[in-house]
Amino acid sequence: MLITFEGIDGCGKSTQIEKLKHYFEKEGTTVRLFREPGGTELSEKIRHLLLHDDGDMDPVTELLLFSAARSQLISEKVLPLLREGSVVILDRFYDSTTAYQGFGRQSAPLNEIETLNALATHHTVPDVTFYLRISPEDAALRTAGSEKDRMEKAGDQFFKKVAAGYDQLAEANERFITIDAARSVEEIHAEILTHLKNRVSS
Amino acid sequence: MLITFEGIDGCGKSTQIEKLKHYFEKEGTTVRLFREPGGTELSEKIRHLLLHDDGDMDPVTELLLFSAARSQLISEKVLPLLREGSVVILDRFYDSTTAYQGFGRQSAPLNEIETLNALATHHTVPDVTFYLRISPEDAALRTAGSEKDRMEKAGDQFFKKVAAGYDQLAEANERFITIDAARSVEEIHAEILTHLKNRVSS
Repeated sequence: MLITFEGIDGCGKSTQIEKLKHYFEKEGTTVRLFREPGGTELSEKIRHLLLHDDGDMDPVTELLLFSAARSQLISEKVLPLLREGSVVILDRFYDSTTAYQGFGRQSAPLNEIETLNALATHHTVPDVTFYLRISPEDAALRTAGSEKDRMEKAGDQFFKKVAAGYDQLAEANERFITIDAARSVEEIHAEILTHLKNRVSS
Repeated sequence: MLITFEGIDGCGKSTQIEKLKHYFEKEGTTVRLFREPGGTELSEKIRHLLLHDDGDMDPVTELLLFSAARSQLISEKVLPLLREGSVVILDRFYDSTTAYQGFGRQSAPLNEIETLNALATHHTVPDVTFYLRISPEDAALRTAGSEKDRMEKAGDQFFKKVAAGYDQLAEANERFITIDAARSVEEIHAEILTHLKNRVSS
């Protein structure tokens, strides 16, 4: 089973992912977690290029480097793990590309980004995508004060466009489960477990 | 004006490109030559990843890394030079991706490669593409004994598929000028100049 977590920065993904990972581990289920870009030797080298850019990187180049790191992660790690029957959790996947580069930054037309995503993922679609929905204002409060990387420095208008993009994706794709992320960590975790249990039993 | 040179390894591109570059320089025309992947600081870093792969690189990852290097070259160097009115010569461009990765290696479906090419080139189309056509057998004779890189080690069947791919591209695209590359260096150079002069005067 491939589970992905999506949402704007500050939505509380990382906390929920760690809790879900512990839940699977306690159950005795083999679970692996990956965060893009990275997860393979080559993908980490690409990550280094992305994060240590001196500002000259073209937005389309950025999109393609992310996609290259993704392709390697999927082919080298994720697909073999899924074939073995492991649970794989991804902290962001191609919906992030659509939301951040497509809707937010508008690096390329959405249909081109969709084709690129299909290529980079080797046509791999998550079984379920938990979208932790939070207003850009609440998210900004949560991330205020923490060290920000280049992606997070892009400003409020940008995050509003990204959030609207996620809303559209959630509307259009049945695999999306939209979770109100303004609630407590425990409430959100419980809702995620309920969804997963319903899924397995149905 | 954007001029690209295409053809299988051993077709004699490099020699013709140097001769054409000298011709423009003698005429006093500003001309810049680029060879992919490379041509910018970032693209050279990506080239390093591509050429020093230990064999674990997925074919789609390779395609995406090439495309990322291309995107940066186009946005940072080629498009500004074209806007200034320079002549830019590319020793291979996206037709190589279609021929080598699309027809030869079949890394991805052709329609996905076409979308990727449009994205990576920022929709830049050459004004003229000189396709130096040579049989895979003749090309193999020319490259025999020279040091081969990873791309060139892929074997005869592969080059036959690439050559057939180029033939299809030349058939389908008016910007292609197919040149019989089995002739002498001087004859080929003269034919290239004739085509360019006809183009400018028409």
